[in-house]
Amino acid sequence: MTTTPEDAFLRDFHEVAKIGATESGGVERQSATPEDKQTRDWFVRFAKERGWETGVDGIGNLFARVPLVSGREEQAGVIMTGSHLDSQPKGGRFDGAYGVLASLHAAAQVEQRVRDGELTADHDLVVVDWFNEEGGRFPPSIMGSSVYAGLMDRQKMLEVTDLAGVSVREALTSIDYLGSDDAPGVPPVDSVKGYAEIHIEQGRILERDGLPLGAVDSSWYTQKLDIEVLGEQSHTGATAMADRHDALVGAAHVILLFQEICERFPEETLVSSVGQVTVEPNSPIVVNSRVHLVADLRANDPQIVKDARDWLLAEFTKVEEKTDLRIVAEDFDIRPNRYYPIEGVELQEKVAADMGAGIVRMQTMAGHDSVAMNTVTPSVMMFIPSADGVSHCEREFTSDEDMVTGLTSLVGVLERMVQGELDGVAYPGSPAA
Amino acid sequence: MTTTPEDAFLRDFHEVAKIGATESGGVERQSATPEDKQTRDWFVRFAKERGWETGVDGIGNLFARVPLVSGREEQAGVIMTGSHLDSQPKGGRFDGAYGVLASLHAAAQVEQRVRDGELTADHDLVVVDWFNEEGGRFPPSIMGSSVYAGLMDRQKMLEVTDLAGVSVREALTSIDYLGSDDAPGVPPVDSVKGYAEIHIEQGRILERDGLPLGAVDSSWYTQKLDIEVLGEQSHTGATAMADRHDALVGAAHVILLFQEICERFPEETLVSSVGQVTVEPNSPIVVNSRVHLVADLRANDPQIVKDARDWLLAEFTKVEEKTDLRIVAEDFDIRPNRYYPIEGVELQEKVAADMGAGIVRMQTMAGHDSVAMNTVTPSVMMFIPSADGVSHCEREFTSDEDMVTGLTSLVGVLERMVQGELDGVAYPGSPAA
Repeated sequence: MTTTPEDAFLRDFHEVAKIGATESGGVERQSATPEDKQTRDWFVRFAKERGWETGVDGIGNLFARVPLVSGREEQAGVIMTGSHLDSQPKGGRFDGAYGVLASLHAAAQVEQRVRDGELTADHDLVVVDWFNEEGGRFPPSIMGSSVYAGLMDRQKMLEVTDLAGVSVREALTSIDYLGSDDAPGVPPVDSVKGYAEIHIEQGRILERDGLPLGAVDSSWYTQKLDIEVLGEQSHTGATAMADRHDALVGAAHVILLFQEICERFPEETLVSSVGQVTVEPNSPIVVNSRVHLVADLRANDPQIVKDARDWLLAEFTKVEEKTDLRIVAEDFDIRPNRYYPIEGVELQEKVAADMGAGIVRMQTMAGHDSVAMNTVTPSVMMFIPSADGVSHCEREFTSDEDMVTGLTSLVGVLERMVQGELDGVAYPGSPAA
Repeated sequence: MTTTPEDAFLRDFHEVAKIGATESGGVERQSATPEDKQTRDWFVRFAKERGWETGVDGIGNLFARVPLVSGREEQAGVIMTGSHLDSQPKGGRFDGAYGVLASLHAAAQVEQRVRDGELTADHDLVVVDWFNEEGGRFPPSIMGSSVYAGLMDRQKMLEVTDLAGVSVREALTSIDYLGSDDAPGVPPVDSVKGYAEIHIEQGRILERDGLPLGAVDSSWYTQKLDIEVLGEQSHTGATAMADRHDALVGAAHVILLFQEICERFPEETLVSSVGQVTVEPNSPIVVNSRVHLVADLRANDPQIVKDARDWLLAEFTKVEEKTDLRIVAEDFDIRPNRYYPIEGVELQEKVAADMGAGIVRMQTMAGHDSVAMNTVTPSVMMFIPSADGVSHCEREFTSDEDMVTGLTSLVGVLERMVQGELDGVAYPGSPAA
């Protein structure tokens, strides 16, 4: 009985899913925790066994270089592929980890084809595990790839602290994964000629359409709102209702407004939730004086987000009048639509056609490392189905069959990219764009 | 220029208010913190200067014995008076501290009258600072007096931990205020022949009626509800709105229901708020899976609390159906109406008449140490006005004039109690009751 490359991939995927596994089938591997270290150590072992050089940069991104053109002339550049191994608290085992495992195995397959003389590459491959894509422990999300792409400041990000006061610098040092940007094995950003990432959809469009592959052509317009509701502390027992200025009541109105606004637009054109809530003083017998909320607004059409935000701010004023509270809202983390190069979308469609697999063009509602990389190099974003469209939770699920179809598609895309198929195409940050 | 006893009291009151003072005029002196220790050390110095013996029991209650009958036959018992020096987070400087300072000074005045031969006492006085009345750091509230009165288990309470995992035992040990129940200076509970406490009203009835004194005849019926709203984690960006099971949305509905229920009963007959909220996983880009809420329901009429609770549980079911979430609610901390001995109410009215001060009978909506003490000894609960009825907040305020009127009234009540005026009257826990 021989082991196929697909079997090897599935075995490794399910092996890595055991690291930080939760009882309900998820994983708990937040950034720079001991569990994150274990997955990184696993990545390094995978690379070393194949003789691939690894390196860690100054924000904890982990790279492995797959030599495809060595022995020939001075290398012109690399094609990068990867995703992230970190998870949300009680997150799913597919989000990010699937992309890294698929990239490692796809790179091994491409390397084998080059060795077997079936393929001549113009570029080496680099597999990457981006640091802190999730941002659950250290906000903002998409940190490692954004620093690599020059969109965020490395020193500033190293000073970001978690709720326990531990900085990114301390956390990365504690797990031995803080390197430097000029370390061996870290590819200079200008050597990257293209980037490919595969990820679970985290929505249910592919499942509903019965298709195994999605070619992402753009990302949604997103913004967050930082909201403070300000009232006054008093006694939950002794203070008359008319004398209470309960910030929590104002916050409840705000939370429901974020639900209501989505119902005011056509279905699935706007999504929104309040994710983070801090309540002060949060004592069982004290009326709360301050609630801090972080809310998220996303739509493909920027005008929808802007209209929704304006409607919300007007409604906050009505809540202020009704409750005699103060509500202060500030925009932050505004991310415009980003368009992936059409050549990369068409490349995915060609590969799918060769495979005889169905594919559809789609947008991503979630942020991804590829959105950051697409500002510095032509990037390709590929989706495979998520059961029930759920993600960031333990029951996140994608079948072995769908994972293998995605892997095969990624191999096809990388084979063409290392041959230079996307060299020089326009991307959002390119001089031509 | 001579210092009057009233001046001395005000000077000390405003001196103690500096301990743990906040910028906005409040105090931050949660139980068994260094600030709590400072007020306790101040209490001990006040007692020692007057030659009063102090003692600390096995739950951190601090006592000072004022000898009034020493030198005569074996003492028959003591009259106890006090309140609590601990505060809510960012609490007011009057809540509790006023009662302890007034008790110390009232005891000093009574002692002086005995020394001057103007008064013959049948009982000694004991001034007490009850441990952890507020319950903000270590739930439940009214802990020290409840343990002293045998209503709560000492060992169990010593194991209660704060949100940082520190136990009552560790916290009391760290500030050097964990004693034992048979320590010198700790009066056995069966030696207590009466208890008197003075406190700010924390409501606005006295202010509205323009009266300086309130004689509390009973406490409201109260209960808490422990509520869990259970949904499912998902991605705030990628998950379609129809696929979200956002526990925070359910929690927002629950919070507003506690407002609505108060509007369904006649004004000021029912008060209610959600005080404590825990949100999980509480990450900016994750739809929350679980919200835990602690809510408070209080009314003078127990049937109102029971009807309100039944209506709320029925509404929770409707929220469950509307939102596809699960809501689990449990009753806890049910405290029935407690009636103070009518003789104690009449005693306050006699003292007020002698002073020429206005007084009104009223109920307390808040819990107090006297409610616990009233189960083991005839207890007297006295109120003075709170400006705007606000409490558990930094702008809590009572005028010097009102504080002095309260002090004078307390002196009058204690003078009669040490002479045996309430000896043997029925109270909720007495064999006669």
